[in-house]
Amino acid sequence: MSLDAILDHVDSDLENSIARLMDLMRIESISTDPEYAEDCKATAEWLVDDLNSIGFDAELRITPGHPMIMATGGDGTTHTLFYGHYDVQPVDPLTLWGNPPFEPSLEETKNGPVIRGRGASDDKGQLMTFIEACRAFKAVKGALPLKISIFFEGEEESGSPSLIPYMMEHAEELKADVALICDTGMVEKNTPSIVTMLRGMVSQEITIKGPNKDLHSGMYGGPSINPIRVLTKALGALHADNGTVTLDGFYDAVPELPEQIINQWNNLDFDENNFLSEVGLSVPAGEKDRSILEQIWSRPTAEVNGIWGGYTGEGFKTVIPSEAHAKVSFRLVGQQDPEKIQASFKKHLESFLPADCSLEYKLHGSSMAANMAIDNPAFEIARNALSNEWDNSGVYVGCGGSIPIARHFQKIVGLESMLIGFAQDDDSIHSPNEKYDIRSFHKGIRSWVRILYALA
Amino acid sequence: MSLDAILDHVDSDLENSIARLMDLMRIESISTDPEYAEDCKATAEWLVDDLNSIGFDAELRITPGHPMIMATGGDGTTHTLFYGHYDVQPVDPLTLWGNPPFEPSLEETKNGPVIRGRGASDDKGQLMTFIEACRAFKAVKGALPLKISIFFEGEEESGSPSLIPYMMEHAEELKADVALICDTGMVEKNTPSIVTMLRGMVSQEITIKGPNKDLHSGMYGGPSINPIRVLTKALGALHADNGTVTLDGFYDAVPELPEQIINQWNNLDFDENNFLSEVGLSVPAGEKDRSILEQIWSRPTAEVNGIWGGYTGEGFKTVIPSEAHAKVSFRLVGQQDPEKIQASFKKHLESFLPADCSLEYKLHGSSMAANMAIDNPAFEIARNALSNEWDNSGVYVGCGGSIPIARHFQKIVGLESMLIGFAQDDDSIHSPNEKYDIRSFHKGIRSWVRILYALA
Repeated sequence: MSLDAILDHVDSDLENSIARLMDLMRIESISTDPEYAEDCKATAEWLVDDLNSIGFDAELRITPGHPMIMATGGDGTTHTLFYGHYDVQPVDPLTLWGNPPFEPSLEETKNGPVIRGRGASDDKGQLMTFIEACRAFKAVKGALPLKISIFFEGEEESGSPSLIPYMMEHAEELKADVALICDTGMVEKNTPSIVTMLRGMVSQEITIKGPNKDLHSGMYGGPSINPIRVLTKALGALHADNGTVTLDGFYDAVPELPEQIINQWNNLDFDENNFLSEVGLSVPAGEKDRSILEQIWSRPTAEVNGIWGGYTGEGFKTVIPSEAHAKVSFRLVGQQDPEKIQASFKKHLESFLPADCSLEYKLHGSSMAANMAIDNPAFEIARNALSNEWDNSGVYVGCGGSIPIARHFQKIVGLESMLIGFAQDDDSIHSPNEKYDIRSFHKGIRSWVRILYALA
Repeated sequence: MSLDAILDHVDSDLENSIARLMDLMRIESISTDPEYAEDCKATAEWLVDDLNSIGFDAELRITPGHPMIMATGGDGTTHTLFYGHYDVQPVDPLTLWGNPPFEPSLEETKNGPVIRGRGASDDKGQLMTFIEACRAFKAVKGALPLKISIFFEGEEESGSPSLIPYMMEHAEELKADVALICDTGMVEKNTPSIVTMLRGMVSQEITIKGPNKDLHSGMYGGPSINPIRVLTKALGALHADNGTVTLDGFYDAVPELPEQIINQWNNLDFDENNFLSEVGLSVPAGEKDRSILEQIWSRPTAEVNGIWGGYTGEGFKTVIPSEAHAKVSFRLVGQQDPEKIQASFKKHLESFLPADCSLEYKLHGSSMAANMAIDNPAFEIARNALSNEWDNSGVYVGCGGSIPIARHFQKIVGLESMLIGFAQDDDSIHSPNEKYDIRSFHKGIRSWVRILYALA
């Protein structure tokens, strides 16, 4: 049976593939908000049913949080494990969406047709590229081409609280020759990419507490400390003028890249100006002496992802609030230790605390950076398959996002991961009007067909 | 007819007076939120009806914002104008209220009975002390003791946008010998106070804009500027370590107090430790070399009254927001010019703006500080009347809050104001669980009876 027959089936079945993705996108699986717990479960059940219908033996696994999905199918000496996540980011601010986020639509754009809606790219669309590839094998050949395990979680967008305990308990079941992860992007529109470096992350929420109740700024303005004043002073001091992060010891375990990797990245067809101008910017805001790709792929960062305190409604209220809050994250690289970074951040905050203020600190999630060992032969097999599909050489790149699962596979299961995804920079993941190019979806499915065929 | 007969009537009618105040408090007159416009109008109508029922000729005056109330009554050579405001502050956070804010309740506390609810003190309770005093004259004597005009507005808590145009158009109608304003507090529980110095205020909202949409901090963290980083840096630099405000020229028009006023204030029975400890604080946060009363009454301040940006819901969202916002106010003293202060603040913010960020600035309201000329004989007449009611010498004091009306009366109508109020420091005005002491309400009514009697 030829590879072409399977690829032809992918082409002829594309409309149905899109319809299935839209069905999946309609379920509102926002994992971070407990109100959507039932929707998360419904999403998992949808996937279990779909996997069972194409020859997998799939089941839902209950956890203290949202359920996992485990599935196995196919036979053969080569065994791959595919990972994805079925949960999505929150959708606020709703007013910025052109269409309701959970009513996916097909849309023509100047760069071709897209599927628009929350999860179109991250990660429902990407995850379905793999399922659709498996479906094509099943339809044409009657079976999967090799032994495939599938592992989906529903807490990736909310710190994956159940993931590590689950993986430790089921480490044997998760073993395979290599893990496949579809949750990353292409370095540019025509360059298929395998991510071999992933930044880690520490995410945390802090509260500065001052007076024991909200105060009138006329009656108390002056003598009363304002927690917002303390918070802005502390967070405003996180970055030096040259873009570096000021925390003590922040760069201690940050390695310099080998010259050859930097050269490889510099040779990529990556347009720094275009990258920034697409989002309305012109000047890189990170470390002054680093390229943008370095700033995203190999350098650590500090970001305030949310801040709030006092009166934020319409009009004006002359209040000195009793509390001020922020959500702060650090992206980690190399061997940066999340616990040391947390400790240094707390020390930084405490150095700004006056006598009458206290700090509440809550850790949301943490993961070290991950670096793949690409001497596993599967890497070159996959890179060649990708090069064939996209008619352009596949490349090994970094990724600024945190995909902690890759590191967990290394540490808990002893498994290297191939991070292969088809998202584009303008997909607006985590933002209003998220989309996935039909081209990404279509060629993504075809890419997996080629990779699975080659691995088998 | 004796003063005592009228005071006796106040005493015997107190329950009814409290019931009327509660009726007024039930109407949700939050002026800053357009959703409550109808409630504001209903409040004004309630007051017009009540004033007409006690011998005033009262009417509602339409403005582009919430309506004004004008009323006249009584005869005589002395003519006073009484001012109050019927609008109230927003009530969030609702969860901190023991009872619903617009369902007033009577409550016993260790300091005696109180009326609890939004507006109990600021300013519905205070305003009703005057109306109840008028009602007592009408009930006992059949008429008001002197010529009284009444002027209520419904926008005091939202920057009074309609006030100046209205006053300029109706300056003749507002003329009187002296204005009476009941919107201030007592310097301590047994010391009746006439406020002769009021801080002014500039209130404004700022938005820092960065990327043209919300971004994923993994994909863009590093190269993309984060507007929250710019905002915290700029606002965190508003205060020096010694508590002074860092804006250029901020203290240019701030006078030093005469030694005799400082001495008078130092002799007041004011407990600095108690003032702070009641709100959970111990160290004054204002200018290091100033007493707390100076910090509140005669020194200018900068406060961030609200800040927001990015993801502020449950869980965590790794977003770089496209915008960050703050509400910032300055309390002004002496001859500080609101326009100069605004300009200096904008310059400060702009000095922190990187190339890719822009600033949106919106002025909410502004007023200079006001200082009363106490050589008007009405001041000593009122102070003596207060001393008699409270059995303790009335004093001239400052006030940290902004009551721009006093300055408008000076500038537009040529009228000095006597700011006499009975609020207590622990009234929680602008905060959850606002209350007004029954003692303040009762003796407040009696105080106005004595003052009107003496002025007549």
